Amino acid sequence: MAKTKKAALPVILITNDDSINAPGIKALVEAVKDLGRVVVVAPDKPQSGMGHAITIGHPLRMHKVHYMDGVEAYSCSGTPVDCVKIAVDKILHRKPDICLSGINHGANHSINVIYSGTMSAAMEAAIENIPSIGFSLLDFSMEADFSASKVYVKKIVQKVLSQKKIKHLLFNVNIPAVDETLIKGIKVCKQAYAKYEEAFLERKDPTGRKYYWLTGEFVNYDAGKDTDVWALKNNYISLVPVQFDLTNYTLKKQIETNWKF
Amino acid sequence: MAKTKKAALPVILITNDDSINAPGIKALVEAVKDLGRVVVVAPDKPQSGMGHAITIGHPLRMHKVHYMDGVEAYSCSGTPVDCVKIAVDKILHRKPDICLSGINHGANHSINVIYSGTMSAAMEAAIENIPSIGFSLLDFSMEADFSASKVYVKKIVQKVLSQKKIKHLLFNVNIPAVDETLIKGIKVCKQAYAKYEEAFLERKDPTGRKYYWLTGEFVNYDAGKDTDVWALKNNYISLVPVQFDLTNYTLKKQIETNWKF
Repeated sequence: MAKTKKAALPVILITNDDSINAPGIKALVEAVKDLGRVVVVAPDKPQSGMGHAITIGHPLRMHKVHYMDGVEAYSCSGTPVDCVKIAVDKILHRKPDICLSGINHGANHSINVIYSGTMSAAMEAAIENIPSIGFSLLDFSMEADFSASKVYVKKIVQKVLSQKKIKHLLFNVNIPAVDETLIKGIKVCKQAYAKYEEAFLERKDPTGRKYYWLTGEFVNYDAGKDTDVWALKNNYISLVPVQFDLTNYTLKKQIETNWKF
Repeated sequence: MAKTKKAALPVILITNDDSINAPGIKALVEAVKDLGRVVVVAPDKPQSGMGHAITIGHPLRMHKVHYMDGVEAYSCSGTPVDCVKIAVDKILHRKPDICLSGINHGANHSINVIYSGTMSAAMEAAIENIPSIGFSLLDFSMEADFSASKVYVKKIVQKVLSQKKIKHLLFNVNIPAVDETLIKGIKVCKQAYAKYEEAFLERKDPTGRKYYWLTGEFVNYDAGKDTDVWALKNNYISLVPVQFDLTNYTLKKQIETNWKF
């Protein structure tokens, strides 16, 4: 990168839900650190499945950590959403130019967007009108190979930064766990109706009292070829534009027209 | 109620996020207990702001508790969403005919739908195609007066039960904290773009290390008269039909048409 004045570069806020020590967030930082001033504020412990939880019953702690040359980084005791809120208010003292979350270890396609701490952090930024992208690789392993992901992450982030700002831009990007040569490209998709079918595993503790582990099997109920699940199955990177206005306008119209309370 | 066979009555699952001991959930049970077989599965401690969090790192506990005559009730160590999942799998062994969440102590209009444990529990049921309604009263107090709420809760639940089943029906109902005589009726609304502007309160512990409390001021950026915030301000009960397909179709089209990666 040329000797551009650092202050003129875009400010890139990075967070995740697998914690600041996960390989995925390091891969994300490496992918984009030449594109701007990168600041990391991420949970100090894994926060998968935290959804859009915020911490309201107790206070947060935050610590500056040594991370990577030229990258300012903080670990935070809160949820992924807390990290975005506190980064803006107490670290950056302004809104970043873009917020990136991930790269998650494991899929966040279909209904997972609702449970995912990764996507909730990205959504929190989008609510604040910060362009925001959540990235996930379809590999749960801590030894996952992020090399292909890094190429496409950089490409997508560059694209978003080069565009005229779109209000409340929010993307959910999932990357198939295959070699870069097999990836067919980026496909703009809708969220599939696919979800986990849960079954709780019942066990007994040494005193004979029951406890329950959440388990589940992932089932795709959506036959469409325009979904993220289809795209990923066919070795595309899925990109779902996401919104936080949850109003069901079709049902709204139906109720207004046909129901009398 | 006439001597109808209990088994033929609708099964009504009730949960919340303020815990099984909150006055709001008792008011909800009282409001609908004559309409079917009521089963309560609710958190054993307050879970406000938990969003759509699920418990994946440790197991859940569940205890049968004495609650109210004719009402089966369980406290659960998990989040509101966990309560719905475990109720279906381990208590009811079937999907209930309707799921009700609340009555929340405090507003869940506008963007709060995303942070709210009350609404996330209701959404979890809707994902499973269980008709579902979250109720909130605009009064944080534990001494809140739920008498008007109970009248309207019963009216809305009866209406939903009497209709032909609508796929993935999900309502976010907020009730103004005013006397029943002042309530103008039920208004079908969209979610307002209104949110908290956060500021973290910085304090120091006895060893001099900083910690942060989340605080915020609620600001309505939405001038529309078709929003839940407007309705509530004008003494209407707001009813927002809610969806869990978060795809932003407008942005999807725009990206597909104009972007090249």
